[in-house]
Amino acid sequence: MKTIGILNGPNLDRLGKREPEIYGATTLAQLEERLRAEFDGAARLEFFQSNHEGALIDRIAALADAKADGLVVNFGALTHTSVGLRDALLGAHLPTVEVHISNIYKREEFRHKSLTAPACVGMVTGLGLEGYFAALRFLLKQ
Amino acid sequence: MKTIGILNGPNLDRLGKREPEIYGATTLAQLEERLRAEFDGAARLEFFQSNHEGALIDRIAALADAKADGLVVNFGALTHTSVGLRDALLGAHLPTVEVHISNIYKREEFRHKSLTAPACVGMVTGLGLEGYFAALRFLLKQ
Amino acid sequence: MKTIGILNGPNLDRLGKREPEIYGATTLAQLEERLRAEFDGAARLEFFQSNHEGALIDRIAALADAKADGLVVNFGALTHTSVGLRDALLGAHLPTVEVHISNIYKREEFRHKSLTAPACVGMVTGLGLEGYFAALRFLLKQ
Amino acid sequence: MKTIGILNGPNLDRLGKREPEIYGATTLAQLEERLRAEFDGAARLEFFQSNHEGALIDRIAALADAKADGLVVNFGALTHTSVGLRDALLGAHLPTVEVHISNIYKREEFRHKSLTAPACVGMVTGLGLEGYFAALRFLLKQ
Amino acid sequence: MKTIGILNGPNLDRLGKREPEIYGATTLAQLEERLRAEFDGAARLEFFQSNHEGALIDRIAALADAKADGLVVNFGALTHTSVGLRDALLGAHLPTVEVHISNIYKREEFRHKSLTAPACVGMVTGLGLEGYFAALRFLLKQ
Amino acid sequence: MKTIGILNGPNLDRLGKREPEIYGATTLAQLEERLRAEFDGAARLEFFQSNHEGALIDRIAALADAKADGLVVNFGALTHTSVGLRDALLGAHLPTVEVHISNIYKREEFRHKSLTAPACVGMVTGLGLEGYFAALRFLLKQ
Amino acid sequence: MKTIGILNGPNLDRLGKREPEIYGATTLAQLEERLRAEFDGAARLEFFQSNHEGALIDRIAALADAKADGLVVNFGALTHTSVGLRDALLGAHLPTVEVHISNIYKREEFRHKSLTAPACVGMVTGLGLEGYFAALRFLLKQ
Amino acid sequence: MKTIGILNGPNLDRLGKREPEIYGATTLAQLEERLRAEFDGAARLEFFQSNHEGALIDRIAALADAKADGLVVNFGALTHTSVGLRDALLGAHLPTVEVHISNIYKREEFRHKSLTAPACVGMVTGLGLEGYFAALRFLLKQ
Amino acid sequence: MKTIGILNGPNLDRLGKREPEIYGATTLAQLEERLRAEFDGAARLEFFQSNHEGALIDRIAALADAKADGLVVNFGALTHTSVGLRDALLGAHLPTVEVHISNIYKREEFRHKSLTAPACVGMVTGLGLEGYFAALRFLLKQ
Amino acid sequence: MKTIGILNGPNLDRLGKREPEIYGATTLAQLEERLRAEFDGAARLEFFQSNHEGALIDRIAALADAKADGLVVNFGALTHTSVGLRDALLGAHLPTVEVHISNIYKREEFRHKSLTAPACVGMVTGLGLEGYFAALRFLLKQ
Amino acid sequence: MKTIGILNGPNLDRLGKREPEIYGATTLAQLEERLRAEFDGAARLEFFQSNHEGALIDRIAALADAKADGLVVNFGALTHTSVGLRDALLGAHLPTVEVHISNIYKREEFRHKSLTAPACVGMVTGLGLEGYFAALRFLLKQ
Amino acid sequence: MKTIGILNGPNLDRLGKREPEIYGATTLAQLEERLRAEFDGAARLEFFQSNHEGALIDRIAALADAKADGLVVNFGALTHTSVGLRDALLGAHLPTVEVHISNIYKREEFRHKSLTAPACVGMVTGLGLEGYFAALRFLLKQ
Repeated sequence: MKTIGILNGPNLDRLGKREPEIYGATTLAQLEERLRAEFDGAARLEFFQSNHEGALIDRIAALADAKADGLVVNFGALTHTSVGLRDALLGAHLPTVEVHISNIYKREEFRHKSLTAPACVGMVTGLGLEGYFAALRFLLKQ
Repeated sequence: MKTIGILNGPNLDRLGKREPEIYGATTLAQLEERLRAEFDGAARLEFFQSNHEGALIDRIAALADAKADGLVVNFGALTHTSVGLRDALLGAHLPTVEVHISNIYKREEFRHKSLTAPACVGMVTGLGLEGYFAALRFLLKQ
Repeated sequence: MKTIGILNGPNLDRLGKREPEIYGATTLAQLEERLRAEFDGAARLEFFQSNHEGALIDRIAALADAKADGLVVNFGALTHTSVGLRDALLGAHLPTVEVHISNIYKREEFRHKSLTAPACVGMVTGLGLEGYFAALRFLLKQ
Repeated sequence: MKTIGILNGPNLDRLGKREPEIYGATTLAQLEERLRAEFDGAARLEFFQSNHEGALIDRIAALADAKADGLVVNFGALTHTSVGLRDALLGAHLPTVEVHISNIYKREEFRHKSLTAPACVGMVTGLGLEGYFAALRFLLKQ
Repeated sequence: MKTIGILNGPNLDRLGKREPEIYGATTLAQLEERLRAEFDGAARLEFFQSNHEGALIDRIAALADAKADGLVVNFGALTHTSVGLRDALLGAHLPTVEVHISNIYKREEFRHKSLTAPACVGMVTGLGLEGYFAALRFLLKQ
Repeated sequence: MKTIGILNGPNLDRLGKREPEIYGATTLAQLEERLRAEFDGAARLEFFQSNHEGALIDRIAALADAKADGLVVNFGALTHTSVGLRDALLGAHLPTVEVHISNIYKREEFRHKSLTAPACVGMVTGLGLEGYFAALRFLLKQ
Repeated sequence: MKTIGILNGPNLDRLGKREPEIYGATTLAQLEERLRAEFDGAARLEFFQSNHEGALIDRIAALADAKADGLVVNFGALTHTSVGLRDALLGAHLPTVEVHISNIYKREEFRHKSLTAPACVGMVTGLGLEGYFAALRFLLKQ
Repeated sequence: MKTIGILNGPNLDRLGKREPEIYGATTLAQLEERLRAEFDGAARLEFFQSNHEGALIDRIAALADAKADGLVVNFGALTHTSVGLRDALLGAHLPTVEVHISNIYKREEFRHKSLTAPACVGMVTGLGLEGYFAALRFLLKQ
Repeated sequence: MKTIGILNGPNLDRLGKREPEIYGATTLAQLEERLRAEFDGAARLEFFQSNHEGALIDRIAALADAKADGLVVNFGALTHTSVGLRDALLGAHLPTVEVHISNIYKREEFRHKSLTAPACVGMVTGLGLEGYFAALRFLLKQ
Repeated sequence: MKTIGILNGPNLDRLGKREPEIYGATTLAQLEERLRAEFDGAARLEFFQSNHEGALIDRIAALADAKADGLVVNFGALTHTSVGLRDALLGAHLPTVEVHISNIYKREEFRHKSLTAPACVGMVTGLGLEGYFAALRFLLKQ
Repeated sequence: MKTIGILNGPNLDRLGKREPEIYGATTLAQLEERLRAEFDGAARLEFFQSNHEGALIDRIAALADAKADGLVVNFGALTHTSVGLRDALLGAHLPTVEVHISNIYKREEFRHKSLTAPACVGMVTGLGLEGYFAALRFLLKQ
Repeated sequence: MKTIGILNGPNLDRLGKREPEIYGATTLAQLEERLRAEFDGAARLEFFQSNHEGALIDRIAALADAKADGLVVNFGALTHTSVGLRDALLGAHLPTVEVHISNIYKREEFRHKSLTAPACVGMVTGLGLEGYFAALRFLLKQ
């Protein structure tokens, strides 16, 4: 059974609590519950959320050392500025799918580019929470 | 049963024939076959491919007039330059998901931006042919 | 009696059908009717609409060969990207007025520049359908 | 009967005196005379020309206070640099049409953009003095 | 007792008359009244408003010659384009605080930079009319 | 009585210890003491300083959950690069004033823009420690 | 005997008819005749001209399927904007030489760059119709 | 005897009064006196200084109407931003030499470019007050 | 005996474990061992590695308080984006040498610039682990 | 019989010695020999190679004085930076064809633009040594 | 008596021979003669012209070593690109005036900026050969 | 014993003579002496300095032909502009270390980028003359 890390970055701990008109009413805990329910028996999911870039880097390295089989990452605001997360993914050599809940192309200009996406297999943006499911399904088929 | 248009743009008729190391060995006809098999009974799929921007615009208008329920679009090279397709999508008011087989963020700089994505619900890039399936699943859940 | 070509580009066949809050409720056919009514006896109007850049280029050349006396053009989305239409106008040597129904300066940044306007006598933008009438009146006075 | 302000900016007092090969031989006084003749009985025209940005701003505010029905403005060189005129128009809430005698798209790069046009209903450029007539006709139809 | 010049630039004479949803309903005269009331006995306030860049430059020089103790300036639209006001401040050697009623960072991109702020001690933006009070309090403490 | 969070970012723990010619000789503890003295009885002040972006994001969320009435923030170097803090402020929906001790417009080009200011009510820059007092006075008047 | 496709893009059907002072008086038909005369017995030349980007893409694919030995292409205005033609060439894997009749470096800035040249073996610009001959001679020597 | 206009722009009335370490201790009146002394009998010098762009434009037009033989202009801060002065010079058709007392290339980046210099015969920068003498000598030799 | 801090930033804890073809097979612990061996008796070396920008800032401040004699820093990915580390170095007033194991000029464009190098004495890039030795030798000679 | 100068710039003396996988194994002497053989009796070829921009400028002037009939130039690295060679060509008034052995559009971004090509009749790039032959053939036909 | 170096750069040896409509019919030798005649007894003039950047740098150093009193330099095309000449001037510490015969602001965009002017006292452009005289007069007055 | 070329570019012959506050009081001859003393018996050092780009290119080629073992280069001002030196290094295939005496990151913006560094193993900047020693030590260890 594959082990997949599901990493969420800054402010995603607020999911469902703030700006539900953008991000919906589901909390991060509920999302994790739904993912666990859907992929129960098919994958071991390791959830992690942090507002600290350093903690996310630490965790990527730990998952690489633990020989995880893939990553689903939503680095939130760090997507657009973090060279460190890009390097961490490049060093980890794990198949990774980047997810964004809202469509980054409909937001401010500076959110249209992703520093981390070139270190990933691909990206899903704008499909809401379904993006996490699509990313996981893809990784489990590899 | 929902009707979904699946539009492919320039050079996607060559799928599976050229550069299989990038795009895989599946042809466009085989992809369409696989999609039909998967969504048989769940959706009516209307396939269309053209190397002509104008023909794609015509088709979007026709699907809007025919009251289709959504679009999956891979405009290929036109993604990065066509204001006309963006306008056509904005005028059609159909929920649309943009798909790219390869990860546009790993390619030339000018492919990192999409003129059409802001007119879509979201985008899936780099997940290979799975992108089409993920897009359809998303649209059928709405 | 002068012959004037009235060329409309991508998505203008949708006039009056989509986004009436922006473009009004008049259809392209009704606009053509109103123009014909107004200039009846004063000019021979040759209408043409296409979503294909190539077809518009073909038509400009045909009108030049037919020794038309002027052009009124609304290339829609192609205004901002088509070098080919610019070249076609430069080669046709016909007095041309560019028209935009909405004010291009109130829209996205990329619509503020026109590649085709430098090949025209002038441009009218934001005056709604009146722009076509003003353009024709100007051409008939030359 | 509608009251329309016709504002001309820097150097337009030189109309007909300098560079007639570009701007024609009609003076500003003659233009005003022709406009008055044409719209006699249809509109009250308030003419104003100044080389001072501040005086133009003052006049816009005065016309707004006097409840004018619209403005035709040719700010000349200030079109491309004046945030103050833009703000004055935004604050005046009067339907305004911007006019340029020559085609700004055929001139230096820095004349291709207009800071004031986004605060107007629309713009007419390159149609010579006819631009003023077209602008007035448009405003009187509203 | 200190003498402080309070200079307001283009369109600020319209305060309270136009766009009260942005700038509030207080007029410039009322603001000046409130400032006089608040700082009565603590400072001699010299008010000046003009839509003319040149007049503002003249006044800065006059206040410098008159050995004023400081300036509170809101140059409005000229903030973003006037090298002349910047030079006037640099030449005046008076402690100056720049004030903007609305938050310039929430408005158009071209309003995010200030040509005059580098010639000031500091800037207050977005605190509404309170900005003038804060600026004066600061200057009186120096 | 209102509760206001006073957040200071990277290197502001060094206040008064380093570069006193720029930032003055008052330490952060002394500043907090002075603020407490001034607003004693008028507001409950919650001080927090961290060199960690993540810790600042955590604290903003905590203050939002605790229903604080406003924030005074000086994010130091993170002002210019942190999308995460911007998002945290947007999600917190608390009236916030940004403060900079020195005038950011007199420093390096990259410090002239603020990523976080558009998520604030306004900003005070260059008024030294007085900026904190002005910000608090403003928030307590709302 | 080698088969070489000679593709001409938008407006090149007007060769010899318009702007002979730039492009000379030879028509496209005459050019094709001259090329056929020169390379008679040495190569099979397949001529194609279209104002439609899509038709040119279709033809490149057809020539690749037909196992042509090389291409001489003059995409005219599309040289500077068409990602689709670039992709078509990359997918065709045929040795290709790009030709421009006039020197693109002597014309507008936007004509100095070529999107399609990186997908070609090389380019000849400014040598008039001789460019086609030089390109063909090169391809026949490979 | 030739008539030459000597125009000085914003803040040059402060010459000798402010920042003598940059501009020297000579006042504008003294400079004019020295110029009159030097060119007495050789030229009629018409001096004019204003902080108003509009007044400078007015004066250029008046000198053109009066058939002056040339202009020496130091537009100060307006050098870098005024399209109106550029247009006024282009319309005046008078041989003009631009002068700057300090070397504009040693100052801020935005002072390195001149909008008005392309409308002049040439420019002298950094030679202090000698620039005015050199400019006049040049004009009198034409 | 001098005390020198040796600070390593994000992902450098992975040295020797990941991408040995780029960074070599030596681990960070082995590098520290080799440095200690080489400079034993000549300097007291204080090693620190963190993936957290905040922790690195904290450590710089601590070393400044402890009156260290210099710093050798390799901030990895933070080199290109961290204003906070730049400010920390500027505040610490310690002679600092920046080191990069690989040649930043051979990598992506965004790695060619360093935000922190202007706050250092100098930089060594591309000399592999020797860079640390060269930096230390330099600092010990001062 | 025409005299044609064949000028080669920096590093082209290394032809055939270095990087034969890019530039082939033919040395510059062999190329010159082949050219002489091919054009024996048809043209007098004057060969010159230098790594010095100044020497190339000197030679262009000498060939102009000697009334040569044309130039074939490959300025190598100087193509992209030398205003002096551009000026020398403009001053020489000799028909000139620029040649590049490899396709400059397939190399680094800074090699895509040519400062000297606008001073030439045209350019041949990417056709290997055949470029020299094509250029000569063209010049001899004029 | 002062010693002044008069340095002319690339292509200025062609003065009077080429493009007399731009540069006039006076040769460099004649210019030097005229300068010698004019300043005979007032200054020792050391003339030097070279098309080699290195030779110009050598000469600047030699003149600095020989304790010359100033330089008049016209570096021609090197003005816009040579950091080496800028450094040479900075190292020479000689008062230097830059001269351009034509007005660099009326030519191509890339000629509007000067890399060497910031290392000079000032610049004279567009005054034809008079520029050299004005520069010398200025230096002799210092 | 290894042979290493030590190449110094424009203005480095002035070392120790000019601007000692920046570059120190050691002359180039003294530096060469110190290097010879330090590496006596360990390496054969070939020194070369020139202000001519072409002479430096010539020397690089000569050292490559002579099978030198490495290069230490300080191209001074040419670092930032010379494509020719970059190409010469790429063609020479010798391990090369670039040295700058001062920290290029503390100087003008245009000195922050190096065109030649991507053709080197690495770069040392800001360590004064020690940079040469560090570079040599590195090369001798390879």
